[in-house]
Amino acid sequence: MHGFKRKELKHAPAARPDGSPLAETPWRRDTRLERFANPFFCIFEDQAWNRRADRHFDYGIVSFRNRAVGILPLEPDGRVWLVGQHRYATGEFSWELPMGGVPPEMTLLDGAKKELKEETGLSADYWEPLLPLVHLSNSVTDEAGAVFLARDLHEGAMAPEASEELWVITTPLEDAVAAALDGRITDSLTVAGLLAMAARTRDASAAGG
Amino acid sequence: MHGFKRKELKHAPAARPDGSPLAETPWRRDTRLERFANPFFCIFEDQAWNRRADRHFDYGIVSFRNRAVGILPLEPDGRVWLVGQHRYATGEFSWELPMGGVPPEMTLLDGAKKELKEETGLSADYWEPLLPLVHLSNSVTDEAGAVFLARDLHEGAMAPEASEELWVITTPLEDAVAAALDGRITDSLTVAGLLAMAARTRDASAAGG
Repeated sequence: MHGFKRKELKHAPAARPDGSPLAETPWRRDTRLERFANPFFCIFEDQAWNRRADRHFDYGIVSFRNRAVGILPLEPDGRVWLVGQHRYATGEFSWELPMGGVPPEMTLLDGAKKELKEETGLSADYWEPLLPLVHLSNSVTDEAGAVFLARDLHEGAMAPEASEELWVITTPLEDAVAAALDGRITDSLTVAGLLAMAARTRDASAAGG
Repeated sequence: MHGFKRKELKHAPAARPDGSPLAETPWRRDTRLERFANPFFCIFEDQAWNRRADRHFDYGIVSFRNRAVGILPLEPDGRVWLVGQHRYATGEFSWELPMGGVPPEMTLLDGAKKELKEETGLSADYWEPLLPLVHLSNSVTDEAGAVFLARDLHEGAMAPEASEELWVITTPLEDAVAAALDGRITDSLTVAGLLAMAARTRDASAAGG
């Protein structure tokens, strides 16, 4: 069903260290049945043949309609904006980067601007990719996402979705990074985005010093 | 169906900056139907009432049987071990930390030891939590994972699963981090684990200098 366009999510996997080409996939899809669908994902049950095992496997795939996009909104003094909400799927409260699903017909950057505005009221004059491609859960899903860095921020009115009860805070990047490292912040795209920003800050410090 | 035990995956979300308590969830589950199940996950379709919107929503949840565990095997010279494989769900080749699913009846640490041995042949004398809890895709799944640091490594025989065609390499941590930052390494638990190790290495350097 979902024609997920990956053109914005470039992926050139790291080559083998000796430069030899990556082998072909051992998997071949033979049949596919759609077993469930809602507006956010569908479930495919494939019969897939595996070259190595020389037999078929039933492979259940969660195929996402939208791409996930997170935004790291950074103030000049080093504070980041975070959004807190109860996540129904995990049953837990979660502090996260502003984020959301970007439908296939929208560019990732436009989706990032829209989600940032809706969840925090912020708009930004400066945008830059921070993590160009993350596969969130690749054992059984095809969900792909990205994180943008947003600077030169302007505050405005939030416009959350009808079901969203959101808390919006700013906190020093180093405090958010500490929370990601010790399990108080758990969302994978948020953890990856915060730690990527920390790595970039470290590199800039090293280059400057 | 799946009695997912979370006791090893501790989560104490960061408090609000003013110390005020986190609000109750706006969601209440009223009905639940199981719409699909295989050995790895099941699909629940819930009717959930939302306080803020004051109406019911159909909420599809992907509930995972296993926890995900990743291992960052670190050599004294700073090289890390990575495993490469074609991921059927994404259709792409992926360099990752050794990782796998840990069934409910097994501890995370025992699962980490088992996966490390199966995928790389390595055993380790030193184990430490690196990321205690990550929710991989919390918009519609309850999948939770963790990453361990493994040191004092001993090489042995691999024992991959029948369908797994694995490439095993070692690479300097800083090269793996660079690949995570520019989208050549995309698996979320791998990206988070590598960047967490980089943050820890930076902190150690700062403390030493």
